[in-house]
Amino acid sequence: MPLPSVRALVFDTFGTTVDWRTGVAREAAAFLTQYGAPDIDPATFADAWRRRYGPSMEEVRSRRRPFTRLDVLHRENLEAVLPEFGIDPAHVPAAALDALNLAWHRLDPWPDSVAGLHRLRQRFIIAPLSNGNIILLTNMAKRAGIPWDAILGAEVVQAYKPTPESYLRTADVLGMRPEEVGLVAAHNGDLAAGRACGLKTVFVPRPTEYGPRQTTDLRAEQEWDVVATSFEDLAAQLGL
Amino acid sequence: MPLPSVRALVFDTFGTTVDWRTGVAREAAAFLTQYGAPDIDPATFADAWRRRYGPSMEEVRSRRRPFTRLDVLHRENLEAVLPEFGIDPAHVPAAALDALNLAWHRLDPWPDSVAGLHRLRQRFIIAPLSNGNIILLTNMAKRAGIPWDAILGAEVVQAYKPTPESYLRTADVLGMRPEEVGLVAAHNGDLAAGRACGLKTVFVPRPTEYGPRQTTDLRAEQEWDVVATSFEDLAAQLGL
Repeated sequence: MPLPSVRALVFDTFGTTVDWRTGVAREAAAFLTQYGAPDIDPATFADAWRRRYGPSMEEVRSRRRPFTRLDVLHRENLEAVLPEFGIDPAHVPAAALDALNLAWHRLDPWPDSVAGLHRLRQRFIIAPLSNGNIILLTNMAKRAGIPWDAILGAEVVQAYKPTPESYLRTADVLGMRPEEVGLVAAHNGDLAAGRACGLKTVFVPRPTEYGPRQTTDLRAEQEWDVVATSFEDLAAQLGL
Repeated sequence: MPLPSVRALVFDTFGTTVDWRTGVAREAAAFLTQYGAPDIDPATFADAWRRRYGPSMEEVRSRRRPFTRLDVLHRENLEAVLPEFGIDPAHVPAAALDALNLAWHRLDPWPDSVAGLHRLRQRFIIAPLSNGNIILLTNMAKRAGIPWDAILGAEVVQAYKPTPESYLRTADVLGMRPEEVGLVAAHNGDLAAGRACGLKTVFVPRPTEYGPRQTTDLRAEQEWDVVATSFEDLAAQLGL
């Protein structure tokens, strides 16, 4: 059986557990129409908003900025991205910006995620290890019925992935050695950073995370401990 | 309907949600027999171990010591209390001490707790706001089927109750104003500290937490927002 040392499975969320692009596009469509950009493809808007995600966290990872939760970064990034689509955020009510920002709390899981997690939690502690903040992940799980045993991630350990602290402190709060923790992700870079800290690794590719023309993370770039086509396939490979 | 402003209910755990005294006594009985104190009442031992809980956290609250998770304090307190019962911890294998320390992860809920929480989570985010650490609360919930939406508490906010930071930072990670958070506890002192920070308050007395001769926290000492006889009664008072 794979992963004999593992007692907890921790999951990337955006892209691995939930489909952020479709969800954000769905929530953005009415907003774009209402505030003057009805011809914009909402998925293109989602991609542009998401493009600012990494750089905004880099400000924190580099210690140029103290730890700041993702809800705040998303909100700043929203104001920054709107002018790209001809919308001046100063002309949008703050409440409408706040409401759109909550799109990230209302993302739908991939079709296999919830069923797979129910099977996996029979043997493992399961939790997100996400750059999402606590209330974002809690609202997402409650809305979608994701059966996490705990809400972990960047805000709990005050460190964004892929810093070593994000993985090592997560193992620490679990009271586990790194090899007792398995990281499940659709992103080779996340897994490489986790493996460098001693975590076990599970790759579940999500070939449409970035839409139909995705070119990255389509296949395993290292020999990860497990490669699975879905969370249900992972459960099956683990005999669950 | 009571608590109209409240969106999340956070719960004290030791004594309010679970029965620590019976659980620790159950786990300690075989240990005491094996290590030379077969005539000690295990509940008396549980009381003595618990008596060191407050003072050990006070070292952290007073900033004489950096934040230290409860599993570590419990383990230190175990070594400190054993000589009171004629047991030298140096003569006990470390693995046996570690195993007994996990008694706090294996406490049973009061009979109404799980059923009441299932009803309450239909309307509210529910989470522990406990001095227990993350893995302690996660193991406890998983073993007992407690359906928390998130694991909050002292380790998440790096502050022990009843400091103001423990309540205010918990509201902050929930993205809520203090009055949007309801604190459920069997202890008037916990509720008084939460109310001073603006939280709403729910008193659920647990008259046998300290055994059959309990004299404290038998009744409400302020006009709490709600007083309920059980978590099921609380759910009923909230129309759930």
